[in-house]
Amino acid sequence: METISFRNNALFLLDQRKLPHKEERVKCKTYAEVSSAIKNMVVRGAPAISVAAAYGCALGAIAGKETQAYRSLISSRPTAVDLANAIGFMRANRTRKSPLTLAGEWEKTVYDKCRRLRLHGARLIPRNPKILTHCNTGPLAAGKYGTALGVIAAAHKSGKRPFVWVKETRPRFQGALTSWELGRMRIPHRVIVDSAAASLMAGGEVDLVILGADRICRNGDFANKVGTYDLAVLAHAHKIPFYVTAPSSTLDSRLKSGNSIQIERRDEKEVLEFSGKRIYAKGTRALNPAFDVTPHKLVTAYITEDGIFRSPDALWKGTKA
Amino acid sequence: METISFRNNALFLLDQRKLPHKEERVKCKTYAEVSSAIKNMVVRGAPAISVAAAYGCALGAIAGKETQAYRSLISSRPTAVDLANAIGFMRANRTRKSPLTLAGEWEKTVYDKCRRLRLHGARLIPRNPKILTHCNTGPLAAGKYGTALGVIAAAHKSGKRPFVWVKETRPRFQGALTSWELGRMRIPHRVIVDSAAASLMAGGEVDLVILGADRICRNGDFANKVGTYDLAVLAHAHKIPFYVTAPSSTLDSRLKSGNSIQIERRDEKEVLEFSGKRIYAKGTRALNPAFDVTPHKLVTAYITEDGIFRSPDALWKGTKA
Repeated sequence: METISFRNNALFLLDQRKLPHKEERVKCKTYAEVSSAIKNMVVRGAPAISVAAAYGCALGAIAGKETQAYRSLISSRPTAVDLANAIGFMRANRTRKSPLTLAGEWEKTVYDKCRRLRLHGARLIPRNPKILTHCNTGPLAAGKYGTALGVIAAAHKSGKRPFVWVKETRPRFQGALTSWELGRMRIPHRVIVDSAAASLMAGGEVDLVILGADRICRNGDFANKVGTYDLAVLAHAHKIPFYVTAPSSTLDSRLKSGNSIQIERRDEKEVLEFSGKRIYAKGTRALNPAFDVTPHKLVTAYITEDGIFRSPDALWKGTKA
Repeated sequence: METISFRNNALFLLDQRKLPHKEERVKCKTYAEVSSAIKNMVVRGAPAISVAAAYGCALGAIAGKETQAYRSLISSRPTAVDLANAIGFMRANRTRKSPLTLAGEWEKTVYDKCRRLRLHGARLIPRNPKILTHCNTGPLAAGKYGTALGVIAAAHKSGKRPFVWVKETRPRFQGALTSWELGRMRIPHRVIVDSAAASLMAGGEVDLVILGADRICRNGDFANKVGTYDLAVLAHAHKIPFYVTAPSSTLDSRLKSGNSIQIERRDEKEVLEFSGKRIYAKGTRALNPAFDVTPHKLVTAYITEDGIFRSPDALWKGTKA
């Protein structure tokens, strides 16, 4: 199952809004179409949107609209830094190689990082663990391999028999993507509503939490899907290890701490409707922050392609960002 | 808007599953119909189901099926003790008065307790507060007045200008009932997904948490809608007051601590489907605990019809359970 592929001068994106019910692809022939696909979450997940953005830049460059492409893609989603880093890479190297070759390089690098990080991460997973995860961090989110779900898959392949609690991840139910991917890998799992995590922890039903990141700051604070920060507080309160996985493209050397991360607020309808059907009374308003920020002190370890890091300092020293 | 009414030998229940879209009533002519309405959540909220159960007992007694009615109603929902306490009241007084008179007495007592507790609670609410609440605790949940939402309404009436963050309360979206009730009372509010609460707290957007309870044990541990315990941990971590409101019919003198509370597990479909439409891939399984247990040490104060209590000891001494 290919999440992202480039052929015949177009980028094909597996439409994640239709999964797990339908496998459809969206064809993007221009940077503007890629930008819109990122904004509307046809493609989602920090590493995956960075790959899509690299190809979006390439399509822009080929059409002689390089600057417009950078500008449009950078503003398609504000929180994940991987997207900005992909654009930065395309920009910095634009005189060196053809845009499509560059996009292909970025893609290969992202997959390679995810391939490596999952093997580091798997060392942290004990036998027969009950693992809690949030949002979707599988191949869908990263183009290939995945981040946190890649770690779980690697642990599964090595015979550690993980069981996974899948948080549904309101409002967009990325838990449906995660359970679909786990099902395909035959990894046992159950879906829970987001707020059932705490009582499972209290009942000894969670051995570790592992999830992804959208932007990791210099001090180790990181942004990830809304619902990550509460999980970190809860894991801390229950003395449960809390692991963050991301390729180094998620590191943001320009931001000192989480206070400066821009949190995307998405359409209220994501909260107030399901599949076009209204849940709330007419006139009801919602607030829909798509991400939250978790302070570094709640993180047990960061896992990147360069290893396992027990502190923000170690992370920044050990990872070639 | 009447949640519960008895007329022409039948109990009429406002169908809370249809709200806020349709105002329909379900007519129950037998104890079995009342029992089924409680189980299917036509009527919900600990005080409201206790009133419905009292009338269910009365219908059973009138039909000469007293014992069957007790048995059926007690097992309709296991977690809220108010239901058991209502049945206990009907049973203990059955030789004293007619069943319908007794049910009416129970109803009146419940409303009277809620009327009184909201005035105590309102004293705890500062001016211009940003209040976070969970599930639904308004007139719908209590027949009249409500518990936590009653307190908020009383604070609003006295000019304190509360603003309310309404947690959507997955899986059944009781937040839609709360926002509908707040809208009718013209109290400003916004809906959030359950896992957005933590980042609002971190951002200083929550001054206090107030919610209801389904069963309060001797040591002060209490059961309430799943998503309460995590909120208590989060409030504690952010030094935000966490208030629990309930009429004394929610006190369970037989249970020493929260460990012994039976937590209802409801149909997985509540998590996996919305309005009959599948969210997850075929074969996906869920775990759906309807409640969780919060330890007493996380409670700032309990509010009953008898006052405000800062400790479990004070609660049990001060409330005539």
